[in-house]
Amino acid sequence: MADEVRLGLIGVGRIGKIHAEHCAQRVPGARLEGIADMVLSQEQESWAKGLGVRVLARDPQDMLQDPAIDGVVICSATDTHADLIIAAAAAGKHIFCEKPIDLSVPRVKAALAAVQKAGVTLQIGFNRRFDHNFTRIRERIQAGDLGTVQLIKITSRDPAPPSPAYVAGSGGIFMDMMIHDFDMARFQAGSEITQVYAAGAVLIDPEIGRAGDVDTAIVTLTFANGALGVIDNSRKAVYGYDQRLEVFGSKGMAIAENDLPNRVTLSTAGGVTGEKPLHFFLERYKEAYIGELVSFVEAVLHHTPAKVSGEDGLENMYAALAAGKSLKEKRPVFIDEVRAE
Amino acid sequence: MADEVRLGLIGVGRIGKIHAEHCAQRVPGARLEGIADMVLSQEQESWAKGLGVRVLARDPQDMLQDPAIDGVVICSATDTHADLIIAAAAAGKHIFCEKPIDLSVPRVKAALAAVQKAGVTLQIGFNRRFDHNFTRIRERIQAGDLGTVQLIKITSRDPAPPSPAYVAGSGGIFMDMMIHDFDMARFQAGSEITQVYAAGAVLIDPEIGRAGDVDTAIVTLTFANGALGVIDNSRKAVYGYDQRLEVFGSKGMAIAENDLPNRVTLSTAGGVTGEKPLHFFLERYKEAYIGELVSFVEAVLHHTPAKVSGEDGLENMYAALAAGKSLKEKRPVFIDEVRAE
Amino acid sequence: MADEVRLGLIGVGRIGKIHAEHCAQRVPGARLEGIADMVLSQEQESWAKGLGVRVLARDPQDMLQDPAIDGVVICSATDTHADLIIAAAAAGKHIFCEKPIDLSVPRVKAALAAVQKAGVTLQIGFNRRFDHNFTRIRERIQAGDLGTVQLIKITSRDPAPPSPAYVAGSGGIFMDMMIHDFDMARFQAGSEITQVYAAGAVLIDPEIGRAGDVDTAIVTLTFANGALGVIDNSRKAVYGYDQRLEVFGSKGMAIAENDLPNRVTLSTAGGVTGEKPLHFFLERYKEAYIGELVSFVEAVLHHTPAKVSGEDGLENMYAALAAGKSLKEKRPVFIDEVRAE
Amino acid sequence: MADEVRLGLIGVGRIGKIHAEHCAQRVPGARLEGIADMVLSQEQESWAKGLGVRVLARDPQDMLQDPAIDGVVICSATDTHADLIIAAAAAGKHIFCEKPIDLSVPRVKAALAAVQKAGVTLQIGFNRRFDHNFTRIRERIQAGDLGTVQLIKITSRDPAPPSPAYVAGSGGIFMDMMIHDFDMARFQAGSEITQVYAAGAVLIDPEIGRAGDVDTAIVTLTFANGALGVIDNSRKAVYGYDQRLEVFGSKGMAIAENDLPNRVTLSTAGGVTGEKPLHFFLERYKEAYIGELVSFVEAVLHHTPAKVSGEDGLENMYAALAAGKSLKEKRPVFIDEVRAE
Repeated sequence: MADEVRLGLIGVGRIGKIHAEHCAQRVPGARLEGIADMVLSQEQESWAKGLGVRVLARDPQDMLQDPAIDGVVICSATDTHADLIIAAAAAGKHIFCEKPIDLSVPRVKAALAAVQKAGVTLQIGFNRRFDHNFTRIRERIQAGDLGTVQLIKITSRDPAPPSPAYVAGSGGIFMDMMIHDFDMARFQAGSEITQVYAAGAVLIDPEIGRAGDVDTAIVTLTFANGALGVIDNSRKAVYGYDQRLEVFGSKGMAIAENDLPNRVTLSTAGGVTGEKPLHFFLERYKEAYIGELVSFVEAVLHHTPAKVSGEDGLENMYAALAAGKSLKEKRPVFIDEVRAE
Repeated sequence: MADEVRLGLIGVGRIGKIHAEHCAQRVPGARLEGIADMVLSQEQESWAKGLGVRVLARDPQDMLQDPAIDGVVICSATDTHADLIIAAAAAGKHIFCEKPIDLSVPRVKAALAAVQKAGVTLQIGFNRRFDHNFTRIRERIQAGDLGTVQLIKITSRDPAPPSPAYVAGSGGIFMDMMIHDFDMARFQAGSEITQVYAAGAVLIDPEIGRAGDVDTAIVTLTFANGALGVIDNSRKAVYGYDQRLEVFGSKGMAIAENDLPNRVTLSTAGGVTGEKPLHFFLERYKEAYIGELVSFVEAVLHHTPAKVSGEDGLENMYAALAAGKSLKEKRPVFIDEVRAE
Repeated sequence: MADEVRLGLIGVGRIGKIHAEHCAQRVPGARLEGIADMVLSQEQESWAKGLGVRVLARDPQDMLQDPAIDGVVICSATDTHADLIIAAAAAGKHIFCEKPIDLSVPRVKAALAAVQKAGVTLQIGFNRRFDHNFTRIRERIQAGDLGTVQLIKITSRDPAPPSPAYVAGSGGIFMDMMIHDFDMARFQAGSEITQVYAAGAVLIDPEIGRAGDVDTAIVTLTFANGALGVIDNSRKAVYGYDQRLEVFGSKGMAIAENDLPNRVTLSTAGGVTGEKPLHFFLERYKEAYIGELVSFVEAVLHHTPAKVSGEDGLENMYAALAAGKSLKEKRPVFIDEVRAE
Repeated sequence: MADEVRLGLIGVGRIGKIHAEHCAQRVPGARLEGIADMVLSQEQESWAKGLGVRVLARDPQDMLQDPAIDGVVICSATDTHADLIIAAAAAGKHIFCEKPIDLSVPRVKAALAAVQKAGVTLQIGFNRRFDHNFTRIRERIQAGDLGTVQLIKITSRDPAPPSPAYVAGSGGIFMDMMIHDFDMARFQAGSEITQVYAAGAVLIDPEIGRAGDVDTAIVTLTFANGALGVIDNSRKAVYGYDQRLEVFGSKGMAIAENDLPNRVTLSTAGGVTGEKPLHFFLERYKEAYIGELVSFVEAVLHHTPAKVSGEDGLENMYAALAAGKSLKEKRPVFIDEVRAE
């Protein structure tokens, strides 16, 4: 494993397929050795062979027991993540796992304990930390260009709401959607969230309300270092995927605007028109999906800490749980209240 | 008074001087007849004559008793506003009064009752409603271009903090600074604020903290029509006066960016650099200061309601008081709690 | 005349009316003493009195002979400019004259000779030199931020073509419209134009072609200091008045984008839409019209050279004549060829 | 060859290496079968095998004679292009050839005649036609959003000049650099250039002047359909690779701004700073390099005309030659003059 990480990928749904192609072709130092899924169509087998994959398995254990595989990329259903992490850790494999680790705190803790014990690398798929815009702001902060961070504002809106069925199983807007923004806020602040206050409303789809969730939310954050933050989420921005970030500090402010498909504006008698943002997460975070795997492979090769740890996954989850509690109890909630539960 | 409103202006401090020049030269239908101030230097008298002013008085009563004066523009110290409004109303004069009406709710109510009884026009100086950017967004909302309003986000940051002495007498950040933003939020929402939650911190100047105030704040709003809002204030944005607004609705989103002194960008080996925002409120809201007086004079001439009423002033004050209470009691506060006090 | 310049204004057409109001109210150190026009309606007289004007005359000579008038602002028809300049110079009055001085080179030279002999200040109304954007770029050049100027690009397009009747008497697109851009090019380059090559076409209105003119033109410039330039003109930009400038040098590039009525963008399912440029020259150059008079009054008060001299007017005219000659003769033309004619 | 085009690539310099990787991994329907270069290092052989290449050759003929290769991608030195095109055509292979075809018109004509006779597909590597920005403007034109095209303005500036040695063999700025812009102008206009006028100067590097070339140029274009155009080139823009396009028509105007590495701006006390353009052609046109190969493969598979034909290559060359002649003879030059030579 001197200069190469041999990977097995588990679960070839939409995101699994993308990760597989990246591992095979776009990640220096990675080699895609195996793919496992409960069902593999003939088309999928042919696609996998085109990527140079050696092992095709129905059972992930086939890869976990393979000594010529160094790590796994877990892209299967959320409720399988914790068990797969535990099994992979037991087998001594490094682990890249899609978010969330699990919807249950005890199961997450069990998974992290297994990783800790095995001493393997675990990285969670909070891919936005690898976005070119957000990375650039973080660099500016670390370079001192913004001075002390005082305010973080995150706008995060989806182009269209998911189905009510999806919402029902998603853990709710805070666990399913805003968890990315909690991660971004912590990443930029370089500090943990200590308290949240959530305001929410059902303004888009009454079905979402009937499923016990909200579709619009504003959450105020307090950080351990004294900074404040605010995140707004909407399940439906008709103009497209709206992913903006603003960090305000004692020496300056940085804003990341949306990425656009092109830089053309049209001026007519009716006005000056530009493009809407890139459609959705697959388009917007295309390079970030590669970046997170590059980072994971580097961490494994150089024995450095993963840039998004299992503990990050747990902290993000606490923030989401606290936001849910705040919305329900109509009061600000300390993260420590949730930790203690 | 057929086609002209003859005005007397009270208090020629910084803003009074500007209002006087506007009344004399820039407001169609207005005539500046008189100026009153406790002290008028020779230079001020000469300046006033250059504006064609007929009456120069030490005592505002000289103007209030003058039958050739139709209305007054009150620019004196805050603690004189309520009494002057009551006296002017008693004298049957129309009233334009700088914000705030007063820092005490009972005194504000007394002033509004006097105006109500006299049947005169009262307009409060929430000038930002007349800003070209914010007006444009309100027009878009009213035209239906944004659909139902769901989220309102206001960024409002000053270039430099006031002196601790000023802070001490200002009523605090919510009453002194964010009150403008509460007014803007209500103006854009077309709906009253029902609840606020305030997070605040002292991140800029410990003196401000010692004066019992915060210098950085994020306030979440709930509106009667179901929409949500959030305002952030900072007493010190090193890059200048940051006054932005974003309204998000079911059919679209409108953003007002900062006004700039020019539209030049410089591209060098070091990057692409543009201008900072216009320096402060006198520059940024220059035209809005004219616009509010134009609007007041039109309301008087056409017997139409003032665009910023005394009740607006009171509602903004309730929001500011509720925010202060929220910050102190660390919980969301209903406006009705404050109204009932 | 110690600290004030007493002005008489000649010709109260559209631009004359604007200059009069500026002289009366917006130009420090200026006093509008008189107004002369062949015909003055009762409404105009009333307007003039409102501005505090002392002298109302049908004959400009009434003002030229008035010892209490220090200078004149000539806004009458183009064919009266030269004679009025000569008369005003003879009377020892300082002169602000709208562009162009005249359409005939010998008459321009005669006017300049009279000014030279009298030793009075003459400023020509090339107002764009006082635009906040273009001034900012010139400052950057003079500060050395762009290094040596290598390329100047000017976009100058009107929102709608003038009437064919106007075109016929205008001297053509180069003398009527592009002359402003020749002035801007010379101003930014800090160097004289030595050669031009004009390409032109009739793409908008065949009537303009029948009047012997073009409505679309691209002119390449060579400057004495070695820099190159290019100007494009169109008589009809459906999206509005397009006035942009780009200067490229050894150390950087500066671009001035169009001024907009507000800074609002609307994002909908259809795209992101912003405002069209400010409508036309009165809106776009509103402050520049004040700025040029402020500059003229300062030049008179401080005995400094006018910022746009009569010689500038003549040089701009040579460039326009050379461009016309180039278009006709289908070849690059040296300015010296035109000078020698 | 039913649903796949098997390609052999000739010349693995910088651009050849990139094309090879694209053919192997990023172009649907393409298969990279072979690579030929006079010298292939062990590292290159290893790299080629990693791409799944079957044939490694020193002599391109090995691929031209291989019946399992359908087409070639010519990336070798310019002076080999024409002979390779002729040989490939004779062998019945489809041809993608980097620009320029050759620096000699007779040799280009000979190559095109060979292609014509063989009936194979030939596409020239004018990759900018596949840029997302420029493509978007062309689509807008074709959709009628701009109405009749009246003016085309192209800004094309390199971040740093090439070595004098390169310049000497490059054919000069018009043939080496502006030829891309002539192609873009023709592409956007949908019409041929009929006349050019070139102004040029040596403002950056005297060595370039001594090599008989200019480093700064402005060329005015006249199109057969009556539109006008202008291109400016500089060999050194200190702020980076400046690639902008503006098309002005009877119904509107479209502008393509530069692509940036990210969408972050930093606001500090010193101003508001954004990113410089993407560094150079490999970064800016990264996707366009893939797009042109995708287009070539589609043309071959579907028997449709190549989007950039050999005739396009010849027309671009005529424009470059005419511009050179114009600069030398200091007069506008008709393309027909050059055609007739």
